[in-house]
This record gives sequence, C-alpha cells and structure tokens, in this order.
Amino acid sequence: MRVLVTGADGFLGSGLARRLVGRVPQLSRLTLTDRHFDGPDHGGLAGADLVPGDLTDGSFLGTLLEPGFDVIFHLASLPGAQAESESERGRDINLTLPMDLAWRTAARQPGARFIFASSIAVYGAVDALAISEATPTAPAISYGAHKLMTEIFLSDLARRRELSVFSLRFPGLVARPPAESGHGSAFMSLMFHKLGAGEDFASPVPASARCWWMSMAAAVETLLHAATLSSDAPTVLLPPAICATMAEMAQAIATVTGRDPSIQWGYDARLTGIFGSMPKIDASLARRLGFAGDADLTSLARKALSGGSS
Amino acid sequence: MRVLVTGADGFLGSGLARRLVGRVPQLSRLTLTDRHFDGPDHGGLAGADLVPGDLTDGSFLGTLLEPGFDVIFHLASLPGAQAESESERGRDINLTLPMDLAWRTAARQPGARFIFASSIAVYGAVDALAISEATPTAPAISYGAHKLMTEIFLSDLARRRELSVFSLRFPGLVARPPAESGHGSAFMSLMFHKLGAGEDFASPVPASARCWWMSMAAAVETLLHAATLSSDAPTVLLPPAICATMAEMAQAIATVTGRDPSIQWGYDARLTGIFGSMPKIDASLARRLGFAGDADLTSLARKALSGGSS
Repeated sequence: MRVLVTGADGFLGSGLARRLVGRVPQLSRLTLTDRHFDGPDHGGLAGADLVPGDLTDGSFLGTLLEPGFDVIFHLASLPGAQAESESERGRDINLTLPMDLAWRTAARQPGARFIFASSIAVYGAVDALAISEATPTAPAISYGAHKLMTEIFLSDLARRRELSVFSLRFPGLVARPPAESGHGSAFMSLMFHKLGAGEDFASPVPASARCWWMSMAAAVETLLHAATLSSDAPTVLLPPAICATMAEMAQAIATVTGRDPSIQWGYDARLTGIFGSMPKIDASLARRLGFAGDADLTSLARKALSGGSS
Repeated sequence: MRVLVTGADGFLGSGLARRLVGRVPQLSRLTLTDRHFDGPDHGGLAGADLVPGDLTDGSFLGTLLEPGFDVIFHLASLPGAQAESESERGRDINLTLPMDLAWRTAARQPGARFIFASSIAVYGAVDALAISEATPTAPAISYGAHKLMTEIFLSDLARRRELSVFSLRFPGLVARPPAESGHGSAFMSLMFHKLGAGEDFASPVPASARCWWMSMAAAVETLLHAATLSSDAPTVLLPPAICATMAEMAQAIATVTGRDPSIQWGYDARLTGIFGSMPKIDASLARRLGFAGDADLTSLARKALSGGSS
C-alpha cells in the first residue's frame, strides 16, 4: 500500500508522519511532501520518502503522483489569517491545489482513499444550538469558503466513484508551535505555551469565550480512523471536538501544571466572533462511525502541554 | 456603462441580448460573447459587439475583459446531462471558467456587478416541505456541485468587496429549443413543442411529477432586476418559479392552444427523482427584493409556446 501525506512538515502532518512510521510497519511505502522539511524529527521518519517541493507547481505534482497512491492525507494549506491577507496565494493553495490533486489522483488511481483536512471555518457565524454536518454553512473567511468548495468538489468525485473521500472538519488544534502564527485561532495554542511555561497570558477573548478544542494527538487518530472507514460512509464528517470556555480550559491546564494561571482577559470582537462564540458540537454521526476525539478536558490539556502526538 | 453577456447565443443569453439592445439604449456599450453566433436573430442586435471565442482560453478571456465591464451576466455553461458525461469539460466550463472570469473581473474592475446564472441543481434530493435560499444543499450531479462551488467563490469575493455579486438559482427554463438537448430537464421543454404543434407527447415522468417552471421571458426580467439591486442584498437568491405538476402544465398548455393534449405518461426514476419531485418553492426573499417571475401557469404557457422573450 502506498500512502502520501501532504503538509507533512506541518504541525498535524509531522504528528501523523511520526505515527505512521512508528505504528504501521506493514505500509509498503510512505511518501511525505511539504515545501521544506525544517521540523526537528526527521530522524524519526526512517523508511519514509521525504519529497520536498511546491504542490502548486503542476510538473512537481505530476511527478509526485506518478507512483500512484492508495491513501492520500491532504493536510497542506495556507492558514486562515494568512489566506485572508494573501488572497491569490490562498486561492492557489487552499482551492486550486486540492482540486488539482484530487482530480489527478482520480485519473491515476481511481477509487483511492482521499482524506482531506477541512475546517469548522466552513460554518461561519452560526445561529444554531448545536452544530452538526447538517448545519447550513456560511463561511466568513476565504479559508472557510475554499475548504467548503473543496469538500463539495471531493464529494462529487466520490459520488462518481472516482475517489473514496472523507473530508474532516477540524477545529483549531492545540498546541500549535508559537511560530505557526498564520492561524486566527493561534491564541488558543498560545494559552498552553504561556501557562505551561508559568508565564502571564494576555487573552484576546474573554474568559467566557466558548471554543472548540482538539489535541494534535486526537486529530492524528481521527485521520487514521478515516483511512479505515467503509467507502459508503458520508463523505463530510465533523469529528468530536471538545466545546469549552477559555476559563474552563485554563482550569484544566492548571490541573495539569499544578500552578494557578495568570491571565488578563481581553475582548477582540473579531476573534471572539469567529473562534469564541461556538455553540455545542453534535458529533454523533462521527461517534457512531467510531471516531473518539479527546477523552476529556484534562486529558486534552495534558496532551497539548506535552506537545507530542502521544 | 459597459455590459458583458456570456453564453449570449444560448437560449437565455440571446433573449437577454435582444432585451438589452431594445430597451436599454443608454448603454454605452454592450458586448456579447459565445463560442459561435449561430442564432437567428443577429439582425436584432445592432449596436452590440459580437465577440465569438472560447472563454476557457485564457488569452481570449484576457483580451475580452480588457475594456473593463460594469455589469457582467455570466450565463455560459455546459448543460447538466452533458457535463455529467464529459466531466473534464464540465469542470472547465462550469467551475474553472466562472472562477477565472470573476477573479479577473475583480482585478480589472473592482466592485463590478457580477450576475451569475446558478441553478436549483445545487439542492439535489431535498427532504423539506419548501425550498428557500436557506435550505441545505446536496447536489446530485456535477453541474449542481460546480454551480454551488461558484456561488460560494463569488459570495466570498462579494464579502471581500471585490465584486458585487448575485447568484440566481434558476429552475429549468421553458421552452428551450429542441436542439438544446444537453439538459436533463429537456423533457419539460419538449412538452411545449409537441403539444404546441398538436403532436403526441411521450413524457418520461408521470402526470403527478411536480416540477419548477419559469419562462425565458421571466428569467430575462430576473436577470435585469438583479442588475438594479442594492449591493447589500444577499448574494444568493432563489427567484420565484412556479411549482406545478406535469398534468397542471399540460392543462395550461391546452388552455392556450385550445386543443386537448395527447400524452403518454412514463416513469424514468432518475428524471422523476431529480426534476419531478420538487417540494414547494419559498421565494419570499426574492419577492421582497422585487423579483416577480411568471404571473401564473397560463401566462407562463403562453410565453413558452410563443418561444419569444416578450
């Protein structure tokens, strides 16, 4: 079996890559691609093919896909805040690229499993008591619009039986490295870094801001589970995230660190509106399909503070 | 003011073009484009620039857009049944082209009014008592998926204030020329041609099949009204169509022709599922914004039988 991971040097991608290398030895071939491989863990990726390059370069993409892949994890994207300011690059990376990748994969390896890291940014400002896959979408940023368009494109290829597709609507993952600042939700990760280091944290959103949380470890398990699903499952899934206020998460961090947190709560209307006003999550469909997510807030905080995928 | 109509030699496009030439003399410039101009009515298009060419050819598109346009009616598309069998051409014409056209227009003439002929094919099989703009979408054919993706792309450009957008979800228009057979809904138009000529009509769907109907004349007025709307109106609109069974429409045709219709009713499960199982339409939003649609079934039948746009 041949497996491809795009964005494999990113936060989620490198976690997935380490997990694939360590736990799935029966893979005949694991190919990892990203623009560069700058991450710290290349020693842990023995046996994988590292193929650096620009996926928006059609000839590079063609060469990369030449062997044919049975499973593709498409994680590469330009983060939301960055895509909002660099709109053409955002379109190229977050829309044209996944469509091109999926189309070429369908032509090269019909029926391949295509697992797409979508985002809860597809919803936009939601007026609902709980969000599920059936909740109407109204993306408020280009990143969300392009993720949604890609979902629709992929679901159509799945309907045509050209690919076997799962689009997973991920929330903001924690704790991303402080350097990955292109995400609007970066403040959620920053709270872990600051409080984990015993430093003060200036939150741009109030204590009552209600966010959706998922550890990178849980996101990796979510991706792996999607690779095992039957092809007749629904193509768009909302994996189980934890819905909790900033204050509740700060308390969970304090439980793990044993330190009282020092936090100044702010109120950035835009960030609070996009990331801090989430209704409850209804992930019952994904749970029925065997997706688990983080066990609870404290477990999530422990994983996020450890920084690892296990 | 500069106005561009794409697909201007098609059924809807040629009707719009004749209406624009005849009734809007204050236009400084009207440009009509299509692959070819084969229609019968070029004599009626005096004063318009006819620019034949392939819009999916980037250099032709660039030259076409060079003057800059204040209003663009984007009607060119590959019909649904044809796009389903020629999937690459469908993607190029129904998805890549409108995105490219919109993106270049936004760059050349920021804030231009972009009016997009979308389709009720965005909905797919609907489990709802009535359909409105808020009804969840689940396109069942690539044509509908690509129309929906284009709507999302355009709405995002509108949110960014790069274009002023209206996407109009049209039902199957009647009566298309018999030669335009690439539409799955062609049987709806064929009923007018057959019964209008006093011939037998073999319907692929049952008498009870409930369809949405709109005359080409009403569609032209819908497009023109969208050109006059305030930019702060919602970007996606469901214009008022008439919801009626095949039997009801056959009766309206009989009222106009004065002849009893001779119809053999069939049951094509696919056509009946896609076009003949429509719930009621809730076009209250569009009506509040001043869209009118056809007055009633008999008036619609009369216009459709006359074949003209007036």
